[in-house]
Amino acid sequence: MTDLVTLSIEDATTLSRDILRATGLSERQCEAVTRVIVRAQQDDCHSHGLYRLLGCVHSVATGRINKSAEPRVVDLAPSIVKVDADRGFSSLAYEHGIGPTLDKARVQGMAALAINNCHHFSALWPEVEPLARQGFAALALTPSHSWVAPAGGTRPVFGTNPIAFAWPRAEADPFVFDFATSATARGEIELHRRAGTDIAPGLAVDASGDATTDPAAALEGAMLTFGGHKGSALSAMVELLGGILIGDMLSLESKAADAGAGATPLHGELIVVFDPAVFLGGALKDNLHRAETLFGAILSQGARLPSQRRFEARRNALRNGMRIPRKLHAELLQLLPEPAFAG
Amino acid sequence: MTDLVTLSIEDATTLSRDILRATGLSERQCEAVTRVIVRAQQDDCHSHGLYRLLGCVHSVATGRINKSAEPRVVDLAPSIVKVDADRGFSSLAYEHGIGPTLDKARVQGMAALAINNCHHFSALWPEVEPLARQGFAALALTPSHSWVAPAGGTRPVFGTNPIAFAWPRAEADPFVFDFATSATARGEIELHRRAGTDIAPGLAVDASGDATTDPAAALEGAMLTFGGHKGSALSAMVELLGGILIGDMLSLESKAADAGAGATPLHGELIVVFDPAVFLGGALKDNLHRAETLFGAILSQGARLPSQRRFEARRNALRNGMRIPRKLHAELLQLLPEPAFAG
Repeated sequence: MTDLVTLSIEDATTLSRDILRATGLSERQCEAVTRVIVRAQQDDCHSHGLYRLLGCVHSVATGRINKSAEPRVVDLAPSIVKVDADRGFSSLAYEHGIGPTLDKARVQGMAALAINNCHHFSALWPEVEPLARQGFAALALTPSHSWVAPAGGTRPVFGTNPIAFAWPRAEADPFVFDFATSATARGEIELHRRAGTDIAPGLAVDASGDATTDPAAALEGAMLTFGGHKGSALSAMVELLGGILIGDMLSLESKAADAGAGATPLHGELIVVFDPAVFLGGALKDNLHRAETLFGAILSQGARLPSQRRFEARRNALRNGMRIPRKLHAELLQLLPEPAFAG
Repeated sequence: MTDLVTLSIEDATTLSRDILRATGLSERQCEAVTRVIVRAQQDDCHSHGLYRLLGCVHSVATGRINKSAEPRVVDLAPSIVKVDADRGFSSLAYEHGIGPTLDKARVQGMAALAINNCHHFSALWPEVEPLARQGFAALALTPSHSWVAPAGGTRPVFGTNPIAFAWPRAEADPFVFDFATSATARGEIELHRRAGTDIAPGLAVDASGDATTDPAAALEGAMLTFGGHKGSALSAMVELLGGILIGDMLSLESKAADAGAGATPLHGELIVVFDPAVFLGGALKDNLHRAETLFGAILSQGARLPSQRRFEARRNALRNGMRIPRKLHAELLQLLPEPAFAG
């Protein structure tokens, strides 16, 4: 017996869907949430993979998620689509809004998708990577709960406030990055707490504002941003564009609204889409080819592109299935409505 | 005699204009370049202030700047304005293109200004801050010359690749940041070299790829990005959006095109403008007010907002003039066509 359990994509999909169904979540939400969770697991993004189901189930149990949410799409302006997620999970709202947004980008050259009133739980790369595979460049950002202190401060103001970007490549996986503007992801600290291991120095302060490597103390105190005042500035930008500009909650407000329930944060998200075909016209192909000069210069010196590890994990998962800790698998099975095959 | 010379805004403006005129640069370019240089000096941004005139004069002397450049504005798509800077300095092209871009943003909700074929020498905040003072949010980015190694590498690929952002505040200076995605600005390393002082550790490697604090060795080797792989990812995004997307040069290409002449980089710039009035409609005022919760939470714990020091310097300069090193002032006077009042 190993400490890992291997699941096929079909196994993981069924497991996720059945767990979510058991919460009473609408079929369409179960499907949309499952799609991003399985994609994360298959890319070996453990903190956004099947592990995240624990948080989703808890979120539904708090009563804060609208289990039968019906996203409403509004054509706000020639370059802006708004989707009200109706207090459901973000994934279904994204799926409703992204088509009209791409249609606008193809005409206007660029367009924004503002998702409001959504419970966001996923990584952002599953939202931008597919756009790059369709030829678009895309930037996504979203606040979360106020867990992160600004540079020069010790008390939480910002969320982990991820920024993701994707760029299309003609004959390779897209260039994709997705990172928290906090020095680490909150999910990573939670995994350390579960594993009983220390976090690295420089990531967080405790409730008194003193540096700590204890994950539990960090979760009670404040995380720090990456890159000092520059990361802090970017995190503020995420609050302004992904919160204020779209008329949705700041991380401070979202945390207050949660009132200790520990549900996935309720707030908004902004996705900005650029259509290189409009920017470049007949010069599109030559320019996409020219971008390979950049990627080649990075790779040829032994440096890596962001997401490279993720794409390798995906190819491996498609061949060999994905592995999750046996302990997590057992916890997930507990969430099923009836005894199930333990794998 | 102090080591500083105090100049009024009028003094600095006249000095800059006269120095640029002496190079044969067209009157309109002299005016546009002088505006941004004096604004930087007045905000005590030394590396982009009057010091930068040395670089501008050298750039014109290399013959690479089109002294009589006439920017051409193209209405590329409903949300895209392009300006061909005609190989002149960026400032005049920006001034031509920004009005039509704001007009588009007011209708579409957002718009992009792509400046091509420009010699860029200024900070980016002078381009985005005025937009926030008119009620817009704006994001600007531009490549430079390949001086910066990607995370995990040791050889230059990226430029210093600044990102700037500005957000309007109803009753305060806008929220504005502008930072190099390199760990420091190249201008700062040059100032250390001039001053004969070491740079901090972690900013650069020498030509062999080894860490260095010697500014001359750093200038020969490669600078590093801020924030490890996250800063490196952002820097790549600047190359893609501020280079490939707008059909203009990568930092690698711009450096190669310079061929050792040491002129200000010739390439492009992307500015993305969001109109909060379109995004928010009747809820604009309430949301701008709500953003003050964020700024208050930062300031109330003793942390600072980016640009705060700059705005304080500006207020001081408006009252008391600006101070530049006497040595720099003497160098600048040498660039005047005839003996001038030495201040």
